[in-house]
Amino acid sequence: MQLAELQVSYADVAAAAQRLQGVAHRTPVLSSRQADALAGARLFFKCENLQRAGAFKFRGAYNAVSLIPASDKQRGVVTHSSGNHAQAIALAASLAGIPAVIVMPKDAPASKLAATRGYGADIVAYDRETENREQIAEAIARERNMTLIPPYDHPHVVAGQGTAARELLEDAGPLDYLLVCLGGGGLLSGCAIAANALAPGCKVIGVEPEAGNDGQQSFRAKSIVEIAVPATIADGARTTHVGAVNLPIMLRYVHDVVTVGDAELISAMRFFAERMKLVVEPTGCLAAAAALTRKVDFGGKRVGVVISGGNIDLPVLAKFIAG
Amino acid sequence: MQLAELQVSYADVAAAAQRLQGVAHRTPVLSSRQADALAGARLFFKCENLQRAGAFKFRGAYNAVSLIPASDKQRGVVTHSSGNHAQAIALAASLAGIPAVIVMPKDAPASKLAATRGYGADIVAYDRETENREQIAEAIARERNMTLIPPYDHPHVVAGQGTAARELLEDAGPLDYLLVCLGGGGLLSGCAIAANALAPGCKVIGVEPEAGNDGQQSFRAKSIVEIAVPATIADGARTTHVGAVNLPIMLRYVHDVVTVGDAELISAMRFFAERMKLVVEPTGCLAAAAALTRKVDFGGKRVGVVISGGNIDLPVLAKFIAG
Repeated sequence: MQLAELQVSYADVAAAAQRLQGVAHRTPVLSSRQADALAGARLFFKCENLQRAGAFKFRGAYNAVSLIPASDKQRGVVTHSSGNHAQAIALAASLAGIPAVIVMPKDAPASKLAATRGYGADIVAYDRETENREQIAEAIARERNMTLIPPYDHPHVVAGQGTAARELLEDAGPLDYLLVCLGGGGLLSGCAIAANALAPGCKVIGVEPEAGNDGQQSFRAKSIVEIAVPATIADGARTTHVGAVNLPIMLRYVHDVVTVGDAELISAMRFFAERMKLVVEPTGCLAAAAALTRKVDFGGKRVGVVISGGNIDLPVLAKFIAG
Repeated sequence: MQLAELQVSYADVAAAAQRLQGVAHRTPVLSSRQADALAGARLFFKCENLQRAGAFKFRGAYNAVSLIPASDKQRGVVTHSSGNHAQAIALAASLAGIPAVIVMPKDAPASKLAATRGYGADIVAYDRETENREQIAEAIARERNMTLIPPYDHPHVVAGQGTAARELLEDAGPLDYLLVCLGGGGLLSGCAIAANALAPGCKVIGVEPEAGNDGQQSFRAKSIVEIAVPATIADGARTTHVGAVNLPIMLRYVHDVVTVGDAELISAMRFFAERMKLVVEPTGCLAAAAALTRKVDFGGKRVGVVISGGNIDLPVLAKFIAG
């Protein structure tokens, strides 16, 4: 098969790391002997739930905002997201001192609307049933001459996300496997580029919710497969298709894509709260759930696991952990 | 006033740090701009909730077990504790390959009994209403010729706990204040020794539950004041008196003791879960609650805050955060 030309290189990830130095948190890498026993491996958890704005998304958002040409920058950024990318862009724009417009569903959780507004962004609400958020964002970008930064299908976003795996490999040492959650493919493709450059023998594995395995289908079909909005508690992975920038990178550098069920996500969330004292949102549990339930036979080897985020409303968290 | 001779020096803390190297986790120091805004200071949280067995207690337990003379060691250790010290001693004994007997109340939470047994310790259950746990532990130590390691009133325990502040000062840099929870005084006295040696200008402040301010009373009276078992959700600080080893150290090196109420602990627990993605037990919130509610006017300065532990049953956590 003809390999598609990739739009992101490891040099882009390294440059993003420079930009993020002193701006993003260098999140800790934690371990747990109990987790190791469950997984049959030595696990190294990269805690992006402890990142600014509560998720890895700040990395890509800040990198992309930094790379807007000076001539366009002051007019600001626009994006569409109901989740962590919204807050990440709002925070990155606020740090850059430029306006941000976020297209969010009317029925997004009040806490997410409040957090996004708290960073000073303007919110444009839309109706999930009748309106298309991408078209609204594109129209705003066109009319106001703002730069659109989509959540994952963008080279500068991918390069920023790759810095998470770069730090993990620097801090944990050599890894045999790297497990990364898969929604639109921004984090997975960025991390795969970093792992390929820094740990060439490391097998990178994407982890998706069972109910929304469009990424697995696309990976196997070697072309983008679109599905209906999947029903899963992993709200950050309720994407309907991976990105055009992301899939070629996945096809080049990712070893496999596996899936986990919602019940396994809840078990992982409980494990994190009870044993590792961490709050992890359902999407953030994807990679860990695959490790803890041995979706892959690791043979006692060294496995990196990215915890992607921790943004969950407290009443929802309470419901999941009350048991 | 004549200063009492202290039973622990900074050299003891430094030696404990050597023993703990590679055995205890070097827990991360985290920061949060939202926390800083609430406190009017720059806060540096030392996350001992991420320590092995879920609390700082492992430091002192491991140090004390390591220092048992070779002639006595194989006969094992005994202690009395319903909480984190029990698990810490059980784990430390297990790592040393020696037996451990833990005197625990019959009505201790099933999860704590299970965790302690999980580390291989023998549990002797007693009735809180009719029996004295200290006498039971002393009798076992005498009869079986085992070494008794109490939860806080012991120089080797104090030296081990001081390593938490040593690491915090190494990682955070200079601090103007250091806030530490106060139950029996093991963590506070150990940390005060380390701060005095490494950051002489740093004001060390103990934080107690309002309902159980025996430590504050003792600090002011300059002698040990005993109270009835206090009613507070901070179960790790339901001690009735500080230790004889601990008070002289507190009187020499601690600047003040302040108190916080249970409602302030719950607010801090919610803040940690929602904003910092951390599970912190009520006692672990004491120092942070004092900072977040500005019990001290920090004037924008640099403040270390020790998060002492994260062991809380999930249903109880769920109840507190459901709101």
